[in-house]
Amino acid sequence: MALVLADVLTDRGIPVSVWGPFAEHVASLRKSRQSPRLPGFRLPGEVEVTDDHERAVADAEIVVNAIPTQFIRQVWSRVGKATPSDAIVVSVAKGIETETLKRPTEILAQALGERDLSRVVVLSGPTIAAELARRLPATMVAAAADGEAAEQVQHHFSSPWLRIYTHDDALGVELAGAVKNVIALAAGMVDGLGVGYNAKSALLARGLAEICRFGVALGAKSDTFFGIAGVGDLATTCFSPEGRNRSCGERLGRGESLIDILGSNPGVVEGVPTAQAVVKLAEQLGIDMPITHAVYSILFEKLSPSQAIADLMGRRLKAERVG
Amino acid sequence: MALVLADVLTDRGIPVSVWGPFAEHVASLRKSRQSPRLPGFRLPGEVEVTDDHERAVADAEIVVNAIPTQFIRQVWSRVGKATPSDAIVVSVAKGIETETLKRPTEILAQALGERDLSRVVVLSGPTIAAELARRLPATMVAAAADGEAAEQVQHHFSSPWLRIYTHDDALGVELAGAVKNVIALAAGMVDGLGVGYNAKSALLARGLAEICRFGVALGAKSDTFFGIAGVGDLATTCFSPEGRNRSCGERLGRGESLIDILGSNPGVVEGVPTAQAVVKLAEQLGIDMPITHAVYSILFEKLSPSQAIADLMGRRLKAERVG
Repeated sequence: MALVLADVLTDRGIPVSVWGPFAEHVASLRKSRQSPRLPGFRLPGEVEVTDDHERAVADAEIVVNAIPTQFIRQVWSRVGKATPSDAIVVSVAKGIETETLKRPTEILAQALGERDLSRVVVLSGPTIAAELARRLPATMVAAAADGEAAEQVQHHFSSPWLRIYTHDDALGVELAGAVKNVIALAAGMVDGLGVGYNAKSALLARGLAEICRFGVALGAKSDTFFGIAGVGDLATTCFSPEGRNRSCGERLGRGESLIDILGSNPGVVEGVPTAQAVVKLAEQLGIDMPITHAVYSILFEKLSPSQAIADLMGRRLKAERVG
Repeated sequence: MALVLADVLTDRGIPVSVWGPFAEHVASLRKSRQSPRLPGFRLPGEVEVTDDHERAVADAEIVVNAIPTQFIRQVWSRVGKATPSDAIVVSVAKGIETETLKRPTEILAQALGERDLSRVVVLSGPTIAAELARRLPATMVAAAADGEAAEQVQHHFSSPWLRIYTHDDALGVELAGAVKNVIALAAGMVDGLGVGYNAKSALLARGLAEICRFGVALGAKSDTFFGIAGVGDLATTCFSPEGRNRSCGERLGRGESLIDILGSNPGVVEGVPTAQAVVKLAEQLGIDMPITHAVYSILFEKLSPSQAIADLMGRRLKAERVG
């Protein structure tokens, strides 16, 4: 996501620096201008690629966090101190920290010295990076309590191939982005078991209802979950063959073990730690999340995916309840 | 849908008769017990296949309408008279009559002699028939103002592979089923143009918001559109390669003409007449439906699908609004 957003800004004539925590990755990117995860993509020559985080953020008006959730705290313990106090911080991370049950923006605000959360903007939506790399059309929301910060992000990141809406429910947008990765694991299992589009679409609808219940219990607005960053992101994550969460679920559905899958996967599967965090929070809040619990039991308690589907289909017949 | 529902009921030990308006189709089905649209499916021997509509419905406790929307009035001018007055009538049709702007259940109630609409049950959900034919797991809602009628349908049609929820918003369920076919045409165009999952998922989210605005303006509940028969059915229709509406849209996206597509298609593409009906109703009600209008303009006013996407992406930047 960092690279494709750098491409958007560069096309708009906005200067960009890219930094990463691994010096060898940075050196490789600086030389090749390519990423193994983005076939055909070339990072524009104007983008500075640096392994000096202080240099990267020193004069920044906007700093984008694209670090996976479980590593934000560690990385930002350094980056946060160097970030100008008037910079807008944007997060595209989608998860919940398992140790603390904090959201990415909460971790960022702490790393920034308990800065006002209202100017930490969540940028989220259905954005498979490999498609943005090809400049295929996509949409996102820029969500913050501070409407002016959200509008600045909307203004800077909008391009002919990326349409950005502002949004005032950063909490809801961030929770939607996190929990959809858990549902995407289940969607992948449906694919691995070969049980079809009807089952996957029912999963999407019932998963969305769970995400919404969860978010509303934590203080988010229900409408958020039915927008681009809610159902839109959920749909692309459940249906695009490229997503890591869906792919991990598919391998689980085919009978592979989680350890083998994670061991052979170079990227981070955000849905796995997020499932742990969501189950903990749901228990604290007393929210019924049968799909999330089933995913958790498959990941960590040896429930088989086919048994999980049979259990969900065999629950007592009832009226449909959304939200 | 008639055949796969007959399979569900037969498996439950419930006697079923199937009737159709075309004698040659009925004769072929009675002999082969197969349908060219359901590969590998075999209609159980217990199911009676008849070309005598009076015989088919004479002692029926439940009569299912699976006639495409624009033909219901004509067919039911005969069937309605023969239907027992205490039978529950179930509709699985998904459209709006272009001439009258009536929903299937309204047409059925008229054909039944202005019978109480509350006992006409809408049965809807993400149900690609070819998957139900393979007995892959699926979900539906049985929706009616009369809760006891909805429960009877839930009871009869529930099976190990078909989970049915009751629902009290028959209007919303029926409208969701109709308008999703229009959005599915647009989803197919996204496929035909090859612009990816991000664009299709944004379309799904913004299309859902349109469907919801439309439904609420007509008196439906917004929650309905975020359930199985709303977003669930929309997802399967937009993503399953098998749907006729999505496939028609894909050919439009590749540059084929509507006349050529409909001429080569043996089935009914419900989204085409539904787009006409929805545009008329939306104008009467003053509802903003940019995607539906774009589909209408592509179908009937020679707008190109790629120009339509450029227009939608280029609208004035704004805040996201759902419902």
